[in-house]
Amino acid sequence: MEYVENIIGRKIPKEVNGRKLRPFRGIGMEPIPDRKTATKIRRRLPGEKKLLKSIEEAIIKSGLKDGMTISFHHHFRGGDKLMNMIFKQIAEMGIKNLTLAPSSIHPVHAPLVKYIEEGIITNIQCGVTGPVGDAISRGKLKGLLIVRSHGGRARAVEDGDCRIDVCFIGAPTADEFGNLNGVEGKQACGPLGYMVPDAQYADMVIAVTNNLVPFPCSNISINQNHVDYVVHIKNPIGDPAGIVSGTTRITRDPIRIKIARNCVKVIEASGLLKKGFSFQSGAGGISLAVTQFLGERMREKEIQGSFGMGGSTSALVQLLEEGLFKRILDVQAFDREAIRSLKDNSSHIEIGASQYANIHSSGAAVNVLDTVVLGATEVDIDFNVNVVTESDGRILHGIGGHQDTSEGAKLSIIAIPLLRGRNPVIVDRVTTVTTPGMNINVIVTDYGIALNPKSPYYRRLKRKKTIQYKTIKELRDIAYKLVGGPPDPIPFKDRIVAIIEHRDGTVLDVVRQAKDK
Amino acid sequence: MEYVENIIGRKIPKEVNGRKLRPFRGIGMEPIPDRKTATKIRRRLPGEKKLLKSIEEAIIKSGLKDGMTISFHHHFRGGDKLMNMIFKQIAEMGIKNLTLAPSSIHPVHAPLVKYIEEGIITNIQCGVTGPVGDAISRGKLKGLLIVRSHGGRARAVEDGDCRIDVCFIGAPTADEFGNLNGVEGKQACGPLGYMVPDAQYADMVIAVTNNLVPFPCSNISINQNHVDYVVHIKNPIGDPAGIVSGTTRITRDPIRIKIARNCVKVIEASGLLKKGFSFQSGAGGISLAVTQFLGERMREKEIQGSFGMGGSTSALVQLLEEGLFKRILDVQAFDREAIRSLKDNSSHIEIGASQYANIHSSGAAVNVLDTVVLGATEVDIDFNVNVVTESDGRILHGIGGHQDTSEGAKLSIIAIPLLRGRNPVIVDRVTTVTTPGMNINVIVTDYGIALNPKSPYYRRLKRKKTIQYKTIKELRDIAYKLVGGPPDPIPFKDRIVAIIEHRDGTVLDVVRQAKDK
Repeated sequence: MEYVENIIGRKIPKEVNGRKLRPFRGIGMEPIPDRKTATKIRRRLPGEKKLLKSIEEAIIKSGLKDGMTISFHHHFRGGDKLMNMIFKQIAEMGIKNLTLAPSSIHPVHAPLVKYIEEGIITNIQCGVTGPVGDAISRGKLKGLLIVRSHGGRARAVEDGDCRIDVCFIGAPTADEFGNLNGVEGKQACGPLGYMVPDAQYADMVIAVTNNLVPFPCSNISINQNHVDYVVHIKNPIGDPAGIVSGTTRITRDPIRIKIARNCVKVIEASGLLKKGFSFQSGAGGISLAVTQFLGERMREKEIQGSFGMGGSTSALVQLLEEGLFKRILDVQAFDREAIRSLKDNSSHIEIGASQYANIHSSGAAVNVLDTVVLGATEVDIDFNVNVVTESDGRILHGIGGHQDTSEGAKLSIIAIPLLRGRNPVIVDRVTTVTTPGMNINVIVTDYGIALNPKSPYYRRLKRKKTIQYKTIKELRDIAYKLVGGPPDPIPFKDRIVAIIEHRDGTVLDVVRQAKDK
Repeated sequence: MEYVENIIGRKIPKEVNGRKLRPFRGIGMEPIPDRKTATKIRRRLPGEKKLLKSIEEAIIKSGLKDGMTISFHHHFRGGDKLMNMIFKQIAEMGIKNLTLAPSSIHPVHAPLVKYIEEGIITNIQCGVTGPVGDAISRGKLKGLLIVRSHGGRARAVEDGDCRIDVCFIGAPTADEFGNLNGVEGKQACGPLGYMVPDAQYADMVIAVTNNLVPFPCSNISINQNHVDYVVHIKNPIGDPAGIVSGTTRITRDPIRIKIARNCVKVIEASGLLKKGFSFQSGAGGISLAVTQFLGERMREKEIQGSFGMGGSTSALVQLLEEGLFKRILDVQAFDREAIRSLKDNSSHIEIGASQYANIHSSGAAVNVLDTVVLGATEVDIDFNVNVVTESDGRILHGIGGHQDTSEGAKLSIIAIPLLRGRNPVIVDRVTTVTTPGMNINVIVTDYGIALNPKSPYYRRLKRKKTIQYKTIKELRDIAYKLVGGPPDPIPFKDRIVAIIEHRDGTVLDVVRQAKDK
């Protein structure tokens, strides 16, 4: 195998499984192709119906056959029932050798492991969380896993790097002409933003719903123009308990609260926390706490921000309703409050994946973000981040919007505990680079805060005497000392099982097959 | 010149000005191409700005040069100032030989005639109303006029028949990242629906606004993903008085009221006026009266309709607010009430041109319309309709949604007075076919009602004894008798100045240069 070293020092093979790889060359360095993929023309004559009665009928009508690429959205998260349901039918119909390219794969999709073993699924292009990632790490997938960020996926679908033959959209509400929304019905999940590129660019779009309403449905998220068939089924497409967590509480762990407070201190020190401030955070414990503490400071300082971006949560919704932010831009909702707000509040705006984060668009919202607070599995002394592989080298998470927001935002902060169990989180060299260090500004841990010397905010933050900083190497040393030395090298087999793409389509890193313990 | 006769008996040249023409072959008979045109990839890096200060700067940034195709929307109607403003600048910059492809041209664009004479505009693809049409009829345009319906235009832009190099969108409200809406600001015009295909498919999209608001603006109609630059100018882009008429009154003319009442009688007799009824009408006097009288009947019969489609008017909004229709689907607003309703009522839904009427989409709303009431300049004994050329053969109107709605709707009704001045409206053979007779079901005039024997509603309507019908030939005879005989043949020169496309891209008819009187 021939290798090229990319700009962050990772060796990238020139070709894997017949797939030519382009090494990551830095932000904005990769030439862009001229045109996106051309979309399929469909003609619907007056009187033609779209309504189908079963998944089986839909798969037949879709023309799905061996070797094709299919997609799904992950807005049902842990409550998704659709992907398993469709694959059960596909398996019964004897279709095989498929590329699965959904917006995310979750632990609830454990039944897919069987279809991977049976050669029904032979390639996956997706962020992967849970047993499917584990199976891939163990070498069960015949082909490759391509891991992309949310924005990278939108780019790949639109540019034709990942051409979707058939897209299945679980629709909490649909009318029979194919207008879909995610805010009404028992399986309400909020925005359908991650399926917008698929709806626009897939050759065939099938909506599946439990909640068929008369045409035209309201709160249209994906419209009739893009939907070929609507399947109305009785079996639930999602489990409401898994779709949303119901209530999302901020952490009570004093370590995480300390980290969150320090994130807010850094944001203040950066000078960004002023009128028109914009912010993204996630649904994890630290993230929710940061959102809440930021709200406190904005209230005290009488600052009105511009927008908060979602993954939206009740914590963010509260800031909107209080007037601390003027808008929420939302690509997925994490709880009931967020779904209600999206439905009822015109300042809570649904956006598609490209609007959110596609570098090959006229402008993604991440590009105008002031601050983002993100997590990590590992960070290294070059500030490279790993969110995909665990300490044992197995693939257990997706990238989400990590690459996109850290690149787009003026100030990206990684908020992490220095240790997870007996594993140091700051290390010499991350197992897998999933976000390049050049896009990370600050690391906030429970043992101190480190600034990336290459950050444009380095000098400004360094000047402020309100915060004590450590170097990233000092933090690494503390971590190593606490656990008695650097972690053992992870034993891998030679075979490459996954490719980590940067959002521009180049390759940041590869993941090799794990050695069974 | 070699000719082929199309299915409605019009002789279509095989080629005009090097442009190959495909003759109209009937509804759904033309094979569809496989793919739409591939859209331009643009990359925006974090921190890049879109805001420009002048039209001149925008034209330079757009890369506009000789021979390109440019587009505009017509939602400002008689109040539009942008198109003239941009062409003034283009003329100053010495750019020439442009194809102008806006969604409509109005009498307010009379200054364009000068640019046509000077060779700055050499081809036009558009429905044309007023002096520009007159100039084309007199042979002043060097190239050709291609006239398309609203749906046909969306198809042509998306399929690449009409590739837009630079699109200028007059935005009543915009933020500096390119989110646009049409419902706020002094130049509010309602939906921006006719520019949705252009925003998505043009290589370069320039928004021009008088009302720049902080990012992110609300009520987003066209989003940041599609807009390359935003120009904030002081000179008004539109005259509010011309954009909307302020109040729209229904006709008091007893002839037109009679026609409107008869339209409603026909709709009732068709059996379509029941729960879930859907309807489109325009902003003319008869149309508004039909809307009002339909409302009366729905109220009396306690019928709740499904949707009314716009061009929306206060008359239609009233029916929505009363609950007689559940939704309005709206691609352009005709008065202030309609704009207010679109802004405030979530059941008043903005749609794009393809969602409205593009035959090459997964489903245009016209396809699920029960009834449409339309006008005509002439109708002939084969039910062919002319809405483009006047009785003297000159081009004076666009097609609008006439072709699209009449083809999509179950029951299409033409509501016309039998005479206009001394001109019979029902004739042996229309000067120009702009909607084929096969798509017309009923002709309602002040002298009687004629059914198209080929209509699927013919037998059902004929059975109803509540209405007296005449044949179309009887109506023609009455018209001819009233004016003392058939109209004189219109003298034309040989040169073809315009092509009338069907919504599928084939050719219904051609228009020749008028002989000066």
